[in-house]
Amino acid sequence: MDPVSAKYIGAGLATMGLIGAGVGLGVLFGNYLASAIRNPSAAASQQPMLFLGLALTEALGIFALVMAFIILFVKVG
Amino acid sequence: MDPVSAKYIGAGLATMGLIGAGVGLGVLFGNYLASAIRNPSAAASQQPMLFLGLALTEALGIFALVMAFIILFVKVG
Amino acid sequence: MDPVSAKYIGAGLATMGLIGAGVGLGVLFGNYLASAIRNPSAAASQQPMLFLGLALTEALGIFALVMAFIILFVKVG
Amino acid sequence: MDPVSAKYIGAGLATMGLIGAGVGLGVLFGNYLASAIRNPSAAASQQPMLFLGLALTEALGIFALVMAFIILFVKVG
Amino acid sequence: MDPVSAKYIGAGLATMGLIGAGVGLGVLFGNYLASAIRNPSAAASQQPMLFLGLALTEALGIFALVMAFIILFVKVG
Repeated sequence: MDPVSAKYIGAGLATMGLIGAGVGLGVLFGNYLASAIRNPSAAASQQPMLFLGLALTEALGIFALVMAFIILFVKVG
Repeated sequence: MDPVSAKYIGAGLATMGLIGAGVGLGVLFGNYLASAIRNPSAAASQQPMLFLGLALTEALGIFALVMAFIILFVKVG
Repeated sequence: MDPVSAKYIGAGLATMGLIGAGVGLGVLFGNYLASAIRNPSAAASQQPMLFLGLALTEALGIFALVMAFIILFVKVG
Repeated sequence: MDPVSAKYIGAGLATMGLIGAGVGLGVLFGNYLASAIRNPSAAASQQPMLFLGLALTEALGIFALVMAFIILFVKVG
Repeated sequence: MDPVSAKYIGAGLATMGLIGAGVGLGVLFGNYLASAIRNPSAAASQQPMLFLGLALTEALGIFALVMAFIILFVKVG
């Protein structure tokens, strides 16, 4: 297989790393909403934790996206 | 494998990145609805969070779709 | 592998992106029904949110389907 | 298959290791938020455990990312 | 396929073993936190079990990482 072909396939595989962040964000926000609607007065105090979890989970998706771009456009050895 | 063949397979693999956003959105809206129906008066105040989570999760699916288009139609090195 | 063979394989892989929308829609409607049966009077007011979540989750499945058609019938490079 | 091609495909496969950390972080923070909003007074005492779990789960994602970079840029035997 | 190429692909496949440990740690800590916040007085007595589960789950991720390194850098046969 020539390297250019492998770039296309490798980038496709790396894009699959977005699956985890998608599931994770859905679970994270879903659980937050379920609780915040049951007890709205306590939800505001937990928003820093919501945004921390959101940033860390989203970051994992961005890592996968960046890796896909690196595989596609960076020339190695 | 020639590069054109690899484009087709790579784009197919990248499209699988949509799985995560699909599951995530379902969990997110499902939990929101479960809680909003139990306590409808508190649901309206949490809708900004619903739309934030929705936008971020949907974005991960769009990233995967865009990557599939890039693999399919952009010519690299 | 010749390009026509790769089209068939790539389209098959892209179709797997429908998995997520299937799981997500199931979770979404399942949670809606579980809550609507527990508190039927509040369920009607939440139906706009149900249809929003349904449309966005279904869209991710349609994206995967469209990408499978593109891989199968569009000639690249 | 020549080694450069294999680097691209191997790095793509390694990037898929991010899936687990994405799902795990979402579950971890989601459960924390669900409980912290129900009983905010007890949440602060459990934050060391939250950060321990967060660090260990995030580390697994970083391991996969590092391994993808090693496969992409380190020359072996 | 020559052995060096196979090393890169094999290491990428081995790195995917991190997925399980990522999901597992998230579920483990998430459930611990959910229960510890609901009943904080009983949580301290269960911490040895938390650390046992944590060590065993993390070990599985490390095993996958070590195997990826072995595939990449150890010369066999």
